Amino acid sequence: MSLTIKIHVTANFGPNLQTVRQKKFANYNVRVRPRPIYSSNPLTVYQPKMSTDSVSVKSASSVIKSSLIEPDGGALVDLVVPENERGPKTIEAESMPKVNLTKIDLEWAHVISEGWASPLRGFMRENEYLQSLHFNSVKMGDGNIVNMSLPIVLAIDDETKDRIGSSTNVGLVGPSGDLIGILRSIEIYKHNKEERIARTWGTTAPGLPYVEEVITPAGNWLIGGDLEVLQPIKYNDGLDHYRLSPKKLRKEFDSRQADAVFAFQLRNPVHNGHALLMNDTRRRLLEMGYKNPILLLHPLGGFTKADDVPLDVRMEQHSEVLAAGVLDPETTIVAIFPSPMHYAGPTEVQWHAKARINAGANFYIVGRDPAGMGHPTEKRDLYDPDHGKQVLSMAPGLEKLNILPFRVAAYDTVAQKMAFFDPSRAKDFLFISGTKFLGDCTTKIFSPVVKFALSYVKMRTYARTGENPPDGFMCPGGWKVLVKYYESLQAEDATQQPAILTS
Amino acid sequence: MSLTIKIHVTANFGPNLQTVRQKKFANYNVRVRPRPIYSSNPLTVYQPKMSTDSVSVKSASSVIKSSLIEPDGGALVDLVVPENERGPKTIEAESMPKVNLTKIDLEWAHVISEGWASPLRGFMRENEYLQSLHFNSVKMGDGNIVNMSLPIVLAIDDETKDRIGSSTNVGLVGPSGDLIGILRSIEIYKHNKEERIARTWGTTAPGLPYVEEVITPAGNWLIGGDLEVLQPIKYNDGLDHYRLSPKKLRKEFDSRQADAVFAFQLRNPVHNGHALLMNDTRRRLLEMGYKNPILLLHPLGGFTKADDVPLDVRMEQHSEVLAAGVLDPETTIVAIFPSPMHYAGPTEVQWHAKARINAGANFYIVGRDPAGMGHPTEKRDLYDPDHGKQVLSMAPGLEKLNILPFRVAAYDTVAQKMAFFDPSRAKDFLFISGTKFLGDCTTKIFSPVVKFALSYVKMRTYARTGENPPDGFMCPGGWKVLVKYYESLQAEDATQQPAILTS
Repeated sequence: MSLTIKIHVTANFGPNLQTVRQKKFANYNVRVRPRPIYSSNPLTVYQPKMSTDSVSVKSASSVIKSSLIEPDGGALVDLVVPENERGPKTIEAESMPKVNLTKIDLEWAHVISEGWASPLRGFMRENEYLQSLHFNSVKMGDGNIVNMSLPIVLAIDDETKDRIGSSTNVGLVGPSGDLIGILRSIEIYKHNKEERIARTWGTTAPGLPYVEEVITPAGNWLIGGDLEVLQPIKYNDGLDHYRLSPKKLRKEFDSRQADAVFAFQLRNPVHNGHALLMNDTRRRLLEMGYKNPILLLHPLGGFTKADDVPLDVRMEQHSEVLAAGVLDPETTIVAIFPSPMHYAGPTEVQWHAKARINAGANFYIVGRDPAGMGHPTEKRDLYDPDHGKQVLSMAPGLEKLNILPFRVAAYDTVAQKMAFFDPSRAKDFLFISGTKFLGDCTTKIFSPVVKFALSYVKMRTYARTGENPPDGFMCPGGWKVLVKYYESLQAEDATQQPAILTS
Repeated sequence: MSLTIKIHVTANFGPNLQTVRQKKFANYNVRVRPRPIYSSNPLTVYQPKMSTDSVSVKSASSVIKSSLIEPDGGALVDLVVPENERGPKTIEAESMPKVNLTKIDLEWAHVISEGWASPLRGFMRENEYLQSLHFNSVKMGDGNIVNMSLPIVLAIDDETKDRIGSSTNVGLVGPSGDLIGILRSIEIYKHNKEERIARTWGTTAPGLPYVEEVITPAGNWLIGGDLEVLQPIKYNDGLDHYRLSPKKLRKEFDSRQADAVFAFQLRNPVHNGHALLMNDTRRRLLEMGYKNPILLLHPLGGFTKADDVPLDVRMEQHSEVLAAGVLDPETTIVAIFPSPMHYAGPTEVQWHAKARINAGANFYIVGRDPAGMGHPTEKRDLYDPDHGKQVLSMAPGLEKLNILPFRVAAYDTVAQKMAFFDPSRAKDFLFISGTKFLGDCTTKIFSPVVKFALSYVKMRTYARTGENPPDGFMCPGGWKVLVKYYESLQAEDATQQPAILTS
């Protein structure tokens, strides 16, 4: 599956943005924090000659400070070993006891190494783990609090623990057998799985995707320590150029002279409801006086559950949405957020927001039931759909981020398009009720027609029958990508069914 | 069962204590916070002519500020309606829709009304509840954080919710039908029981005492609001004179010119291991330069599980311990902490400590597995026994409290008494392993002999056979109280068994 999105960089800046400060939100359903959203420093204008492939841009400095919002802890963590030290450190790592990483462990190593979890410098030791589990935050040496709602931990089994013995450092080996990095000054402690699950998800019901995939099969010990990765982590899946580190994103925002960056976390295809929301947010930021708000369209790229649309399909779909002009490529950056997905609702949305602070976003859009899903064993949402934004708005360490709650959108049956709900003609709008489908926060407030169209099961039916999407639901190019995907699933099913019958 | 402990008040003060400031702990297994433990104000010396029945002491001021440690939020909450307003407020309450309180709801109303949970002014509204559940703390209007680890909530059922309708205030009716108080500016929200249990206990396994007794049978809604109680809550069980409010305790500490108050939370009989610990703590505080450290022996008086020793028996036992001089009545205050018990380990120990800050204690003794119990369905401790003190030492809002971890004690088989473990003659000490009995943190690190003696089941055997306790285990008077209690249980069993056979 080929990918066509490029990172569009424009030199067409607006007027001097340094004077735009401390704007107020007026008449907008937005919770604005009392603290200033800008640091008192003027914008630092980087104007490097950037390649359209942002991954090739090299930074001379190892510490990037944001002009819009400071990374947690004041400086972005970067744990990639400098090139001139790689040789000796690789030799050193080879002599250490080894810990094998799963694919998802590697995703976390990637996340930590690039500073998404700043100021975290490695897999959590027990004191960080306990603070995360009990307080969703960690206190730093200077007494300041940073948000840290998900335990970012590395599990090992008894045999690995025995092999490590009294060693203080271990080498980390990726799923393909490559030496990935080093964990130094390690601490091994018990993996209290039940308690971890209960405190992270607020349930221990069987059927939580991350629990079943990652925690249940994992070892009974956790190993924490200071991480170094021997080189930037790549996946070689044709999507690495989308995997912009927080450092690169910050450079990009500065080079574009963004005076506001609003992040949109998603793990589903972009439909016109999403687009309406993002374009409306930009319009309102402009109304408030910002001159150059930049959208960070930030699909999650790590582990997702089996019935979510895969990353490569989503990236192709997003590309079509930008190509069709539904979102403006001039003011949008599309990049992959490399974190795995927990589906842990109010606990996880804090992580999603915190990581975007580190990436330089000072506005975060939050919807109904963020990072939520259906209860795995009961016919209800796992979380109260309002708790995510409530918890986010009160979370320790996130005070400096501007939280933008979704306005309520629905399918306007008169205009036959997604629109913000207008209470004066309520009967024209269709809201959903009942079962969830894709689990995305926005889709849940759209009409049954849209739900039908987005439903994983219905999409297969659609692909089979060749029905058209509801009018105004999604740009045709994006829709085609999904149809192709569901057709391929159908073909897979067709191939597998006879195999089952004959085996 | 008669009670003989009196609160001993002495006018025999040490030298001027106002100069004792910022002492350092030296060579002692104590975690000392970097912040000063004293406010910069000199001790305010109250010298009222106190009755030995402290409950009869009236305070002219409604806001008590501690001389040793500030209550959370700066001022102690006191929600008891002044006498001259009781008449009109009772008439007002009678006209409101009513909410019936269970016995345990009433205990919480008591706790809130006296300011143990300061700055909480009523049963939690949803924003406080969510902060408690996710962050174990609540942010106040001024941005300061206070610890609040247990949800202090009031559940109502559908019928009560319907009856309340759109009323903004409700009257609270106690278990005996008396009008207890008012909840104003109410907010009703969903009681997400599973999530509350998982996040509070870190498990949803069946068999948690508070869950089975309180949460499972409760309604599906929570009602928050501002509490007023029409008069001080009393139990008329012969123990009310032990129920000293935080305000009264603070007055008492000031009148004794305490320069350090160290609180000991317990829900079990006091044995010589406890006493060793408390006396040793006092000795070390004196060594550090404190002139008049006062022990707050603070048994929990609310809901406990069925196999814990009942409050009245414990209070009689504590009385004997003081009468025998095992603890010094001159430097000890015995009072009841009116909170119900959750058995929620690291989450609950924060509540136990926080409430004692409000009561004026600036030192808190914490042991192995505080507020823990055996896992209800697995053969292991529910919590890692070290997590309680680790979590406590890092908990938001508790920075001003000095945490005193237990030193390891064991049964010294040579001296035939409880003693602090001496690694140089390790073989002389007996440590426990295996099943827990009373669940108290201290008993768990004592010898099998002691465990045998303290075991609920074994005690019945003991009472039947008339065996003596292990030498040096407990003062004879205290032991007699327990023997009498277990004999009474045995008598009950004897009475009940034929009844079962004949019915």
